[in-house]
Formats: sequence, structure tokens, C-alpha cells
Amino acid sequence: MAVRRLAILGTGLIGASVGLAAKRAGDTHVTGYDPDGEMLATAVERGAVDEAAPSLEAALAGAELAVVAAPVAQLTAQVAAALQAAPEACTVTDVGSTKESVCAAAAGSPRFIGGHPVCGSEARGAEHASANLFEGATWFLAPLPETDPERYRLVHGFVSSLGATPVAVDPRAHDRLVSLTSHLPHALANLLVNQAGATRVDGHEPLAAAGGSLRDMTRVAGANPRIWVDIFLDNAEELRAALADHRRRVEQLESALDAGDAGFLARWIAEAAGNRRRMLEQEFTEPGELQRLRVHIPDRPGVLAGITQALGAERINIEDFELRHFSPERGGVLTMLVTGEGEARRAGDLLEAQGYGVVIAPVMG
Amino acid sequence: MAVRRLAILGTGLIGASVGLAAKRAGDTHVTGYDPDGEMLATAVERGAVDEAAPSLEAALAGAELAVVAAPVAQLTAQVAAALQAAPEACTVTDVGSTKESVCAAAAGSPRFIGGHPVCGSEARGAEHASANLFEGATWFLAPLPETDPERYRLVHGFVSSLGATPVAVDPRAHDRLVSLTSHLPHALANLLVNQAGATRVDGHEPLAAAGGSLRDMTRVAGANPRIWVDIFLDNAEELRAALADHRRRVEQLESALDAGDAGFLARWIAEAAGNRRRMLEQEFTEPGELQRLRVHIPDRPGVLAGITQALGAERINIEDFELRHFSPERGGVLTMLVTGEGEARRAGDLLEAQGYGVVIAPVMG
Repeated sequence: MAVRRLAILGTGLIGASVGLAAKRAGDTHVTGYDPDGEMLATAVERGAVDEAAPSLEAALAGAELAVVAAPVAQLTAQVAAALQAAPEACTVTDVGSTKESVCAAAAGSPRFIGGHPVCGSEARGAEHASANLFEGATWFLAPLPETDPERYRLVHGFVSSLGATPVAVDPRAHDRLVSLTSHLPHALANLLVNQAGATRVDGHEPLAAAGGSLRDMTRVAGANPRIWVDIFLDNAEELRAALADHRRRVEQLESALDAGDAGFLARWIAEAAGNRRRMLEQEFTEPGELQRLRVHIPDRPGVLAGITQALGAERINIEDFELRHFSPERGGVLTMLVTGEGEARRAGDLLEAQGYGVVIAPVMG
Repeated sequence: MAVRRLAILGTGLIGASVGLAAKRAGDTHVTGYDPDGEMLATAVERGAVDEAAPSLEAALAGAELAVVAAPVAQLTAQVAAALQAAPEACTVTDVGSTKESVCAAAAGSPRFIGGHPVCGSEARGAEHASANLFEGATWFLAPLPETDPERYRLVHGFVSSLGATPVAVDPRAHDRLVSLTSHLPHALANLLVNQAGATRVDGHEPLAAAGGSLRDMTRVAGANPRIWVDIFLDNAEELRAALADHRRRVEQLESALDAGDAGFLARWIAEAAGNRRRMLEQEFTEPGELQRLRVHIPDRPGVLAGITQALGAERINIEDFELRHFSPERGGVLTMLVTGEGEARRAGDLLEAQGYGVVIAPVMG
């Protein structure tokens, strides 16, 4: 479902990427407006916007679809302004990370469908925009009871045409869902890295002694404060509930440790293993069959190509592939997941024939 | 410093890997003992042990160095038994994940040096042993005040010969350090995945909607309960202190959210960004220069080889490289880190010339 005339209100990273992706997908004319004139100029330069509009109203004139891509703190005001200024035929959507407040602000309008592309880029600004940002991403859509079904179909088709997978969700459920899948993990990453960073142990710095678990668990720590302060505040109620539940679970663990309760710990770990398996089932058809190969490799160009070429030539399908750089002196560790013990053995033999040492182990233990 | 006669007490994954690595490093004769006769037989089969001993005493006869590789819960008893049974000339070390209790059990002996290789393999048993397990790994050594310096040098040289980097640490400081770098992250991973797994949101399963942050933060969830129950209990005191500190930090965040305190959140995120940068400085010489490239690729063999080959041919040095499998239908996302904007642009142009869409952004924001 091609949108012929698209208005983008806010031409930062997401807005400009919507423009680029829409123009790649179809014969779309894009008008753009951004209170930051430089940002708007960059979006035009990048080819994300055909026509820089001098005002919200000008951008909306003749548009079939308006995408509000303002910061979370300005979303409700911008969506209300867009609904007021847009012609009756124009459908309005947004791309904010929270949905309850913005949907409430638009309540009663059959022309609004809240949206949230889950694309997790850490960059900002039109200069980092890309037509590929939404490929393979989930794009939550939160229609209201009042939403016109035709308009919902328009937005559904539009986000699909950008390469994303639309998933319908109630606005409040959305915010609760992302409080668990995104906001709580981000908060814990910040809490963990700050606790490790605030501690010195007998001259040793925990951050300098970080192993794989601490590194993995703090990858999203310190993410862009100009985005995340707003998200945390806008979803404060759901996040507080998630944090309170988390705190109760921490206390439970502390009690079990205090009591030396091995049975509790064993059940708790087994529950975590089961939950992790359920999560992996979304990604892999047979998580129980997954095998992990670990290979220590020197830090020099060409090594990676040699390995992937050898595996590719033997048609070994790699599910996950990760190279962690240790240091130029110590080299790095390559971790690969393949399905099935036989396939793992085959990959291992191949790499050992190339002179690498390989450690193979089942993922699910 | 080659050890000519090595005794391994406990021939599971770590013990058998020590045997394999020692035999590869030098002309070492390895005797092994394990109360589990099958495990011992497997270690002999794998070539990790030259001589299966019928008892602890028999394994220790004539040994220069004894490596106690028993489960954490049995460590203190096994180390005490080894010190008693070993000839005077024999130095004793262990490979347990906690150090205070085992060092206390050996207190007064000039012949004991506690050890902990940080190699994070999820596998168990001699069948998964590998001579490469310790390559590039940190190996903590916790000498006692009474430790004979000659013996410390022996163990230091031995673990270096296995490919590991020895790091000296006080036993108590070690346990505090790993409570922050490993045990707290593992605990939070379990807590987080169990909280997400226990919640249903309006028909949606948070685990099924997991984004990158939740997936990264629960990678170590559900790790082997037969190992981790013992570790959590043995280091319960330090872990409880870390959890209590964590809980205080969670409460602080809840208060800030309750008060709508944007200033607190901004400072807290900035602190996390600084701490993350300090952590990355251990791995990368110029973390501020790191650029992230994201490429959406189809799920089929050969794609990875094509990409790494093209980058290798242009001598682009990839610092980190990660392929996350989404699904056979939707393909996956490849994430690469390179140093410098120019290098990132060069890599991006190369991939775009191959028909891939690339999103480039600085890592540190």
C-alpha cells in the first residue's frame, strides 16, 4: 500500500529514516518539517525529504499520512497539533517508544494510530538516517477503539513496506511490555555498571576485571540520555512497578542466600533455564540442539574471512556468530552457534584443520 | 617453567583441560584421580591423563604440582586432603570460582596457592575438555602470606604456559571482585528472565517480544545449577552485600522516577556512560573512536564469507563482529565495530557496493 504523499514531522534519525525507506519502497513525495532548521536541511541533503516545509501546516497540506517523529517528551503536544492542522483525509501516526500517553492525547480521533518501531539504533540525527533501519524490526501499532479500520490498514501496509513487521497491541499493554523487555533491562544495565564503577576492591577495579557476563549485561548502559530520560519518565509508572517487582525478587534471593537454601537456588536457576529456552525458541527452531563453538584467534585482518569462507564452502549454517576483541596482544574469542552435534563436530574439525583450537559445548547444558 | 610431573585431582571439564593444555605446553606426565571412575576413564581416553590413579595418594606420589579441580562445595575438603597426602615437594593449587574459604582451609601452608581460571565455559565433563580453554583467559592466583615464593613462581609459570594471564589477588578481594563482575550479573540475569517469564501482558509474552537488550542481559541466565548453586552459596556473604547495594540503588531510581527527577536520571545515565567507557578502555585503545555498522542480511550460507572476505581484502580491521540470527524468514542483523569514521565509511561503502544496506553510528554517542 504505497503512500503517495507523506509528511514527516521531526526529521531526526527516525523521521529521516522513514523518509528514506518510504522513498525506496515506492513513488512517495515527502514533505518534512522540523523546528530545528539544520536538522531539516540535513534530511533534505540526505534525500529523506523532497520538500522542506516552513511550518507544520505547510508540511501537512495534501498529505495522506503524517508521521510524528518528535522526542517522547514532545509527542503528545505534537500529535495533538498534527491532528488539528492536518486535512481530514490525512492519517496520523507516531514513532515514540511509549504509547499510553500519546494515545490518550489523541483519544477520540479515528485518524490516529500510535506506532513504535523497535530498531534500537544508538545514533541521533538525520546524518545517521538509513533506509534500512526498519528491516526485520518489530513495529508496534496501537490502534484506538475509535480508529478507522481503513486508516489502520494504511499504516499497517506502510510500515510493512518499510521492511518492518507490524504487531498490534493495546497502548497500555505496550508500555507494560516494553517496561519488561526494554526499560527494565536498560535500567539494570545502568545500575550494574554504576555499582561496579563505584567500587574499588583492594586496588582492583571491577570494571577492568569485567568478564563476559558483565560486558554483555552493560552493553546498553549509558544509552543516549536525551532519549532515555524522556522514556524513563514517560513510562515511570510501569517501570516503577517492574523495579518494585524486581526488588522483591532480589530480597527473596538474599533470604535464600542467608538461609543457605540450596533447594531454592536450584529451582530458581532451573526456572531461569526454562525461561531462557522459551526466549530462544522465538529465534531458533530447536534451541535444545544448539551447540556453541569457541575459537581463540589472533587479532589480525583476514583471519575472520578465512574462517567464514571455510565454513561457507562446507555449507555449515551458522546461527549466531560473535567475535569479541580482547586486545591486540591477546587476540579475541570467536563464538559460533550451530544446530546439531554432527554439524558442530564438522565445523570443529574444519577449524582444527586450519590450526585453530576449538571448544564445543551444548548451549542449553 | 615446565612441570614434569602433574597430578590432577578431579578430571572434569577444567581438570581434563588443564591436563590437555599442560601436555601440549611441555613434556608433562599427568596422573589423574577422580572419585567418578567414568569421568577418569574419559579423561584418559581424551589424552588428558596419562595414568589413572586408584586413589588421591597414588595420584600425588612423585608429583611436583597438584591441581585440585573439584566442585566448589568439595574444594576445602579436597585441598586439605591433597595437602596432607602430597609429598613435601609437591605444590598444591585449585581452580575454584571462589577463593576465601579454600584459602582459609589451607591457611598456614606454604605449599598452597589458590587459583581461579576465568574461562566461562558452560560445558561439563572431560568429554568437552580442550587444550585451548585457557587461552587469553585471566587466571587469578591468591597466594597466602605463608606461601613459599618459589612455589608461587612455579604456579605462575605453569598457568602462563597454559595460555592464561595470571593476576595476583588477595583471596577475600577476589571473592568481592567476582561478586561484582560475575556473581551479581549472573544473579540479575536469572532474576530478569524469571520476572519477564512470570508476566503475561494482555496476551503478549514478554519473552517472545524480547529485544536485543533483554537477550543480551539474560545470556548467562539458567547457567548450570550444579556449578552455580555452590558458587552462590560459597560466596553468599559478598553476593548478599552486592545485592543489598543493588537494591538500594534500585530504590533510589524508583524515588527519582516517582519525583519525576529528570536531573537525577540524566546524571545517572551520564555516570553509566562514563563507566562503560572505562570498561571499554580495557578492550579498545580508543573507545571514543569506535563506530558501529549494522547490516541486515538474509539467512543463507555464504553471506558471511562474502562480507568478511570483502572487508579482509580491503584490510579493514574489525574490532567486534556479531551476527544475530532473527529467523530463517526475516534474516539476521550483523553488527561490526571498527575504529575511526573514515574506516567505518570505507567498510560501509564496500558493503553497499555488495548490495547491503548499512547503518553507521558512533558507539559512545
